[in-house]
Amino acid sequence: MPEIHAARRARAQQLIRATGADAALITAGPNVRYLTGLASSNAALLLPADGDGALLATDSRYTGAALRDAPDLELVTDRFIEAKLATEAARRGVRCLAFEAHEMTVERHAELAAKAEGIDTLPFGHQIEKLRMVKDAEELEKLAVACQLTDAALAEVLPRIAPGMSERMLATLLDHTMALLGAERPAFDTIVAAGSNGAIPHHAPTGRELARGDLVTMDFGALHDGYHADMTRTVAVGSVAGWQRDIYDLVALAQQAGIATLTDGVEAGAVDAAARDVIEAAGHSGHFQHGLGHGVGLEIHEAPMLGYGRTGQLTGQVPVTIEPGVYLPDLGGVRIEDVLVVTAGGAARSLTNSARDLLVL
Amino acid sequence: MPEIHAARRARAQQLIRATGADAALITAGPNVRYLTGLASSNAALLLPADGDGALLATDSRYTGAALRDAPDLELVTDRFIEAKLATEAARRGVRCLAFEAHEMTVERHAELAAKAEGIDTLPFGHQIEKLRMVKDAEELEKLAVACQLTDAALAEVLPRIAPGMSERMLATLLDHTMALLGAERPAFDTIVAAGSNGAIPHHAPTGRELARGDLVTMDFGALHDGYHADMTRTVAVGSVAGWQRDIYDLVALAQQAGIATLTDGVEAGAVDAAARDVIEAAGHSGHFQHGLGHGVGLEIHEAPMLGYGRTGQLTGQVPVTIEPGVYLPDLGGVRIEDVLVVTAGGAARSLTNSARDLLVL
Repeated sequence: MPEIHAARRARAQQLIRATGADAALITAGPNVRYLTGLASSNAALLLPADGDGALLATDSRYTGAALRDAPDLELVTDRFIEAKLATEAARRGVRCLAFEAHEMTVERHAELAAKAEGIDTLPFGHQIEKLRMVKDAEELEKLAVACQLTDAALAEVLPRIAPGMSERMLATLLDHTMALLGAERPAFDTIVAAGSNGAIPHHAPTGRELARGDLVTMDFGALHDGYHADMTRTVAVGSVAGWQRDIYDLVALAQQAGIATLTDGVEAGAVDAAARDVIEAAGHSGHFQHGLGHGVGLEIHEAPMLGYGRTGQLTGQVPVTIEPGVYLPDLGGVRIEDVLVVTAGGAARSLTNSARDLLVL
Repeated sequence: MPEIHAARRARAQQLIRATGADAALITAGPNVRYLTGLASSNAALLLPADGDGALLATDSRYTGAALRDAPDLELVTDRFIEAKLATEAARRGVRCLAFEAHEMTVERHAELAAKAEGIDTLPFGHQIEKLRMVKDAEELEKLAVACQLTDAALAEVLPRIAPGMSERMLATLLDHTMALLGAERPAFDTIVAAGSNGAIPHHAPTGRELARGDLVTMDFGALHDGYHADMTRTVAVGSVAGWQRDIYDLVALAQQAGIATLTDGVEAGAVDAAARDVIEAAGHSGHFQHGLGHGVGLEIHEAPMLGYGRTGQLTGQVPVTIEPGVYLPDLGGVRIEDVLVVTAGGAARSLTNSARDLLVL
């Protein structure tokens, strides 16, 4: 859909003009993909502040993909894409070139500056990432498919969860099921944390076997056409103790409180606070030490970040995760996470739709 | 094994002293892991040119892992690890700090410099990557296990390859089989390329179904304890045409020629040339356009690179891939790839050991 990418580039050009630069060199992979349609581990875009002269550079491995996915753009194929675009910028008379200082290394910047004769370089900031926060309909559709694949995989795997299965086997089963359903690949390294491991928010799956009486947290998602799903469910194996049900219900309540605030115009920090207050009021203020959520899209973690003290307003068509947790050291934990989209003038819409009740398997 | 990491840090300190810096800030993840034992997406090491005062920084997610895997190191936990270490360097009187300019972004470097009051920063180059080229016995053992898992997965999958299976299904089956055998995860995105897609060296698996008469290239590997295997096999489905057997035999011959040169002291460029000459002599000079191979270890592609015009000598305990290919546009291709270790005073040892004959399945 070249029109979509052209429209995005037009919005980016407004931002370039606002910096005073004559052009921007876009090098962050997801940003290049967003503005051109090309998915490549080695591509860059020279985008002038005005007019049609955008120039896409990639190496010969991606020539075919570039011709197919960015047919509306002038293409240059080279082994050294940034040097090539810097030389081209100099040839075009660019005097001030914005660049992505949060992505470009000091080494690559020195090489670039050597080729960009007579050009000042200027940090462009996270401007394209900010553009990417608000998704268009095509993006929301891709993200919805990624979330549906994630839901479907969980539905297939749930009946197979049983004592004796290791964390790693369960993670592998989730990954394989997503792939069989059509996911490109897992959107990130799948987390499975059983029993006391559930107290570690970023636990990597081990050989530990699920046992009766464990809570088991699964944090996983499918990648579909570049868009990342991210969902967490915590289930009980065999039986559930009182303290386990208590923290489960608390986390579910906190999630509902966060979701209830998700409206057009809400402050990012207020969403976090709504959920965090519920957990703190229950005496667990030390047991929820990460942010409430984050944007998802072409990256698994992207703007906006929803955390304590975060600023900025959410608006319609911004998808975010809402993922409160309670982690009791050496005992276990619960996290519940969904992807929701803020809608203009209404309640947020959930893209992940697996049951949120505590399942005892 | 803290002794191993301490020995590696001592070698790194020699390199820091050679630059004239008082200390180095190591920020590339694989380098931090190599020097400390800690696997983390957010960790850095402040290593003085002399003495024992190494300081490891990570965030609270990795505190437990750091205490377990780097028990011999002073640890600081902070949200902003580089700023923390820069402040600490200033406090210690560091005047010249080497940093990894190929990893650090311009933005992070500016933040660092603001905290590193009175300190000059100096690009350290790829010094730790060079150290990592020569593997110790523990590393070679981990890499060997990764390669054995890869071989074992192929042996399980081969009997299941049949017409009608899609590229994506075959890739998923390889990934799942590696996981069931105990791999951490795939070492990289698995490539499966059938028929004419085999002419694209970095083809991403699609829904295209395997058909009788296809050559099918599988490029995959297991990750084990941080070490990356990388193997490619090309098989024929149902039958094999004369031109297919011809290019298969040619690639196998080229691989043998490359492997035969793999001795202690050989020039990187000479290994590439030995294999490339075989392919060019057969009239296929335009059909092998990537380098012959690369180092493998804590990264899937690391030093040394074996390509046209590459310089530098290989020595004992350096593992590399040897992966010639012939790619015929719109027709198909063959690639055969193994991981071999250069040995002191002898023939290279292959860590991947799947049969290299053309299998007709």
